[in-house]
Amino acid sequence: MAKSKFEYVRDFEADDTCLPNCWIVVRLDGRNFHRFAEQHEFKKPNDDRALHLMTRCAQTVMQELEDIAIAYGQSDEYSFVFKRKSKWFKRRASKFMTHVVSQFASSYVFYWKDYFKDQQLLYPPGFDGRIVLYPSTQNLKDYLSWRQADCHINNLYNTVFWMLVQRSGLTPVQAQDRLQGTLAGDKNEILFSEFNINYNNEPLMYRKGTVLIWQKVNEVTTKKIKLPKETEEQEIEVTRTRTKVVPLHCDIIGDQFWEEYPEILAEDS
Amino acid sequence: MAKSKFEYVRDFEADDTCLPNCWIVVRLDGRNFHRFAEQHEFKKPNDDRALHLMTRCAQTVMQELEDIAIAYGQSDEYSFVFKRKSKWFKRRASKFMTHVVSQFASSYVFYWKDYFKDQQLLYPPGFDGRIVLYPSTQNLKDYLSWRQADCHINNLYNTVFWMLVQRSGLTPVQAQDRLQGTLAGDKNEILFSEFNINYNNEPLMYRKGTVLIWQKVNEVTTKKIKLPKETEEQEIEVTRTRTKVVPLHCDIIGDQFWEEYPEILAEDS
Amino acid sequence: MAKSKFEYVRDFEADDTCLPNCWIVVRLDGRNFHRFAEQHEFKKPNDDRALHLMTRCAQTVMQELEDIAIAYGQSDEYSFVFKRKSKWFKRRASKFMTHVVSQFASSYVFYWKDYFKDQQLLYPPGFDGRIVLYPSTQNLKDYLSWRQADCHINNLYNTVFWMLVQRSGLTPVQAQDRLQGTLAGDKNEILFSEFNINYNNEPLMYRKGTVLIWQKVNEVTTKKIKLPKETEEQEIEVTRTRTKVVPLHCDIIGDQFWEEYPEILAEDS
Amino acid sequence: MAKSKFEYVRDFEADDTCLPNCWIVVRLDGRNFHRFAEQHEFKKPNDDRALHLMTRCAQTVMQELEDIAIAYGQSDEYSFVFKRKSKWFKRRASKFMTHVVSQFASSYVFYWKDYFKDQQLLYPPGFDGRIVLYPSTQNLKDYLSWRQADCHINNLYNTVFWMLVQRSGLTPVQAQDRLQGTLAGDKNEILFSEFNINYNNEPLMYRKGTVLIWQKVNEVTTKKIKLPKETEEQEIEVTRTRTKVVPLHCDIIGDQFWEEYPEILAEDS
Repeated sequence: MAKSKFEYVRDFEADDTCLPNCWIVVRLDGRNFHRFAEQHEFKKPNDDRALHLMTRCAQTVMQELEDIAIAYGQSDEYSFVFKRKSKWFKRRASKFMTHVVSQFASSYVFYWKDYFKDQQLLYPPGFDGRIVLYPSTQNLKDYLSWRQADCHINNLYNTVFWMLVQRSGLTPVQAQDRLQGTLAGDKNEILFSEFNINYNNEPLMYRKGTVLIWQKVNEVTTKKIKLPKETEEQEIEVTRTRTKVVPLHCDIIGDQFWEEYPEILAEDS
Repeated sequence: MAKSKFEYVRDFEADDTCLPNCWIVVRLDGRNFHRFAEQHEFKKPNDDRALHLMTRCAQTVMQELEDIAIAYGQSDEYSFVFKRKSKWFKRRASKFMTHVVSQFASSYVFYWKDYFKDQQLLYPPGFDGRIVLYPSTQNLKDYLSWRQADCHINNLYNTVFWMLVQRSGLTPVQAQDRLQGTLAGDKNEILFSEFNINYNNEPLMYRKGTVLIWQKVNEVTTKKIKLPKETEEQEIEVTRTRTKVVPLHCDIIGDQFWEEYPEILAEDS
Repeated sequence: MAKSKFEYVRDFEADDTCLPNCWIVVRLDGRNFHRFAEQHEFKKPNDDRALHLMTRCAQTVMQELEDIAIAYGQSDEYSFVFKRKSKWFKRRASKFMTHVVSQFASSYVFYWKDYFKDQQLLYPPGFDGRIVLYPSTQNLKDYLSWRQADCHINNLYNTVFWMLVQRSGLTPVQAQDRLQGTLAGDKNEILFSEFNINYNNEPLMYRKGTVLIWQKVNEVTTKKIKLPKETEEQEIEVTRTRTKVVPLHCDIIGDQFWEEYPEILAEDS
Repeated sequence: MAKSKFEYVRDFEADDTCLPNCWIVVRLDGRNFHRFAEQHEFKKPNDDRALHLMTRCAQTVMQELEDIAIAYGQSDEYSFVFKRKSKWFKRRASKFMTHVVSQFASSYVFYWKDYFKDQQLLYPPGFDGRIVLYPSTQNLKDYLSWRQADCHINNLYNTVFWMLVQRSGLTPVQAQDRLQGTLAGDKNEILFSEFNINYNNEPLMYRKGTVLIWQKVNEVTTKKIKLPKETEEQEIEVTRTRTKVVPLHCDIIGDQFWEEYPEILAEDS
């Protein structure tokens, strides 16, 4: 049972180091989440419980793994951006991908009950992941813009589609036919004229998705301390600065977001 | 918000198609499972609950994903072998890796309570995965032999180590020193002379790990059927042939296993 | 001018090791050889000088580089097969590709005048190369069969095409139209009925291309030696066994060739 | 001889597309040029004929291939930088590498006699190539600085080494021992005090290597033209602007060069 006789098989492992000085993006998607959403009775077009659970899992990924600068999520997908100078696991692509999706997947089951109180999880879901490198910061911003534009387009469509189905009683096929070939303006008009909905008043989380960034927050806690020369314990407020993962629902396509948070993509990050 | 303006970022995705006609192995390992085992009070050197849970997850992976011919697990790792002719997801490496680890990770949390009845899961665990290609069937067998030889070496060491600690009261450092430089024969001798343990009588699951293969099984169920010309329903036994994932704890280094199950690595599989 | 300050740029070199235990094929093609052939007045459809020069270059590649088991050439392309166990340059793909094409290209100019006596080389030609891995010997044989079948198809077409142009006075466009949609049998029939040519009697080099293999040959040389007890030098024939690269023009699609030369693709080669 | 039966082997070709928006560098080195230089009696430490021939080949590469922004050469190596937006051959790495080295190698033999008039080329030389991607312009500049610093270090060493051998009559081993552990200042001092050589007065081509860039040049030619209303032909000077590859021997480590030629690495190039 000499192990050494077989050890040559290790030489078949290929090197998958990511090119240095590139932003590394890992994006994951729920596997067969159309079916999963139906079986777990997700509310259409958006289920707050599902969206918040996704974000909870993404926060866990950012906290447990290293060097994630920002994350962006919508629907059943989340993208994680690793710092361009990251040397985590020697930048091996397989490490980045598998750590992200496995941590996300286990968290999804672990935190399920915190969000779906009355809905039992019927089976363990799968996620699919991929890795992409972006050489310039502009490329990376364009990637994030692509995902947010995708969120907007899908959400506008889904909002009208489900109104037509849920309120006007159209069948899914009828609703699809009705929307065939319509532009954004047409869809906004249908929402407004038929359902009295101003799309711009829909929740930001639905329209913009969720951005996760690191922020310093002051945590104020109360401690009981016995000061010298005092006989009684006293309650004292203690302020501690911690770095937390904070969700935002804002536009990241324009320049304003990046001007407000220049440290996220700072060259030396 | 024209999505098309940003779509160029898709061109940065690299092709990661696996070379055709090679066996594809995905191996996963628990992340920081040393700490995880301590915090969840795993029994040393082997915790049956943990080993059975690992196997339950691996079975789920084999059933949910496609084209897995065989799997082998020991300790906190599992290897999955995809058929050399598999065209699942166009043989994209990232798909194989992320589907395996995410399905495994979500299953780990999902099935936890079935195995750890009195031990609550404290946090969602992570797993790390890699992919390796083997051009010949001999290479693949040698890979599996390598993992099983590794199981043997580690388990023999751990069995003696924990005997020295648990029964003889040595500290971990003392036990380590005692075993420094010993050969397999020496360890067997310590087990036998000091603890009256014949290593070969230790459970096969500990010494050989777990092999998962597909097997046809006959399932007999009882159905109530009303036959024509009869007035009453009758109970009838119905035999159905199903393909199930079956765990074995046997040697896969020698030829016997492969001669017994030639279909597993059949050329046209 | 500290070199060390810049040395970090070496980390950007990606590993391109070829998977072990695979046959490594490097195929090269002449760059813009249609134009090159016209400008150097290659005879159509086959120019013996050009074909022999290609083979001379390929022989040089096999002799100068290591671990090439067999080569196959036709028209302006040549394929080189490296042994599956080769460890030359640690199996780095870039090394295999660039050594092959650069040695071939420099040889092409170097040996030009030996084949094109009356035709001066007008400019230095370029070659394009690629590398492909084949996990099984059957895959490799199929690769070589693919190239030889390609040779047959192209040569049959070109033979008829140029007969129609050179003997029947058709324009290239007319000849192309005439051959549009014809099968192999049709082309054979045109050659036979219109030009009294039996395609099977055409030179093997044109129909089969060129296979280069290593062969032991006995070289007989004459040496002048003064034997003991003799006063005069005597001429003596000395036979030396050498390994040479030998060109063949035979079928490599059927089994016969591989049965005759089993050592070429022997498992331990 | 159905080709289609074998065409499946094409699927084994791996995609080797270079990541978009990165500078692509192909560097080539002479294979066994130490031996090659000896056999062709290159002058030591620098042979002008050999250096000029290298540059002639590099110019040919830049003219024949597409999208090369700048090249840098020293000793028996040359680096070619392709534009970061280049889409030549879909950015396939094998295409870039093999076209560069094959064009260079054939040019080396083709132009040999223009530089080595009295020295016959004894055999066709080989070259080895590699490809590296640089995501940022700073990375690329650092790459070129690395090569030029390497040129400086080697040339200073070689200049002293060959003085010690050629003028002081040391054996190569003695010269090597003498230089062991010396710093740049020490070597400059030996050159000055023992050989009355100020290293800074050595030819720039030796000390800085050769930079090849594209430059617009005005070419004045004389044409004979018969103007209307004139009976005689007249000689007229015609000025044409052409883009040529021009060799420079200057510092490219500092900022000055890049400030002088901002168009070379312009973002939209």
